[in-house]
Amino acid sequence: MNPIPHDQLLGQLRWRYATKQFDPAKKIPAETWAALEESLVLTPSSCGLQPWKFLVIQDSALREQLKAVSWGQGQVTDASHLVVFAAKRENTPEDIETYMACIAEARNQPIDHPSISGFKKMVIETSNARPNLEWNARQIYIALGNFMTSAALLGVDTCPLEGLDPAKYDEILGLEAQNLATTVACVAGYRAESDKYAALPKVRFKKDRVVEYR
Amino acid sequence: MNPIPHDQLLGQLRWRYATKQFDPAKKIPAETWAALEESLVLTPSSCGLQPWKFLVIQDSALREQLKAVSWGQGQVTDASHLVVFAAKRENTPEDIETYMACIAEARNQPIDHPSISGFKKMVIETSNARPNLEWNARQIYIALGNFMTSAALLGVDTCPLEGLDPAKYDEILGLEAQNLATTVACVAGYRAESDKYAALPKVRFKKDRVVEYR
Repeated sequence: MNPIPHDQLLGQLRWRYATKQFDPAKKIPAETWAALEESLVLTPSSCGLQPWKFLVIQDSALREQLKAVSWGQGQVTDASHLVVFAAKRENTPEDIETYMACIAEARNQPIDHPSISGFKKMVIETSNARPNLEWNARQIYIALGNFMTSAALLGVDTCPLEGLDPAKYDEILGLEAQNLATTVACVAGYRAESDKYAALPKVRFKKDRVVEYR
Repeated sequence: MNPIPHDQLLGQLRWRYATKQFDPAKKIPAETWAALEESLVLTPSSCGLQPWKFLVIQDSALREQLKAVSWGQGQVTDASHLVVFAAKRENTPEDIETYMACIAEARNQPIDHPSISGFKKMVIETSNARPNLEWNARQIYIALGNFMTSAALLGVDTCPLEGLDPAKYDEILGLEAQNLATTVACVAGYRAESDKYAALPKVRFKKDRVVEYR
């Protein structure tokens, strides 16, 4: 356990902004990118199901295709890295089995251990009770929040992208056949010096968004 | 700009876990809590709309009432702090006006400045094109992800809570009349020494969740 000072956290969160213009010449170093991928993998999710895949698109022709269905936003091709956040359309019995096997392996327990079979029952019931795609899509946004904050802590700029055509993304990336649905995307890299938005003050509602019941 | 080392970020993300048992005697210091509230306020959201309120429930009688509609989970009363994440049911014209006024104030521009009126048009169109409650609920999960990561960076334990009855929360807290809907909750504090789950290895799918298109 090695926490950071409050001021350092808030300083980086204030430094973060939805970067409008990336410097295409500045690439995220491999070691930094590996840490950001690991932060994605470490994202918490409901029941621990991790109902997602993170598609890291570095192929430039593919980026051009995606840009065309992202309102032509320049960040899609200019940023160092592009991540498409895809949610499982459905939590299939196989998904749940794979997850249980992963727990058994991590904990060095047999798959039929009572603590695992009890948990499995709970996961199946919870999953059956919720519209899977929307539940999973919400979990994706935990990953997005964690990713943007983690990047800010490492001094990497990001911009989340909801302005895209999810069905076209699915088509281009062949996601439907994989039981996946594009939910949101996020680019990462370094702001261009010419980005005039970087210097604008952050706009936030102040205290009325936090209400204390004491 | 004062970034942290990769290892420190990943160390804190690995240290984080969905805390099952909190030490009721350990309270988050006021200064640390103020930083966590500020991290919530700094959360990014689509169009910057911040379509949420964060309700910090410190009243112990209210906590007991909420626990009863949260599957009786002990964390609801044991943790130092409880935050209910409530999404706007609808982005009303007044909400959008208030937001525009906030931008004008932050940027020291008149409300009828072309850059503000152009942006307002885009926000109204975007908001009209999406089912507001679900769109806003997804944004809430960005705040949840940011909050859990920020807390981990400060050495504060958290546990997200989806196992609750949102309609009962809304009733107890009088949220519907305020155009708000309970989406998720999260407790924060410090893990109890007796929490046997704290020592369990984290269960994560490895590389198959990150797919690289090169």
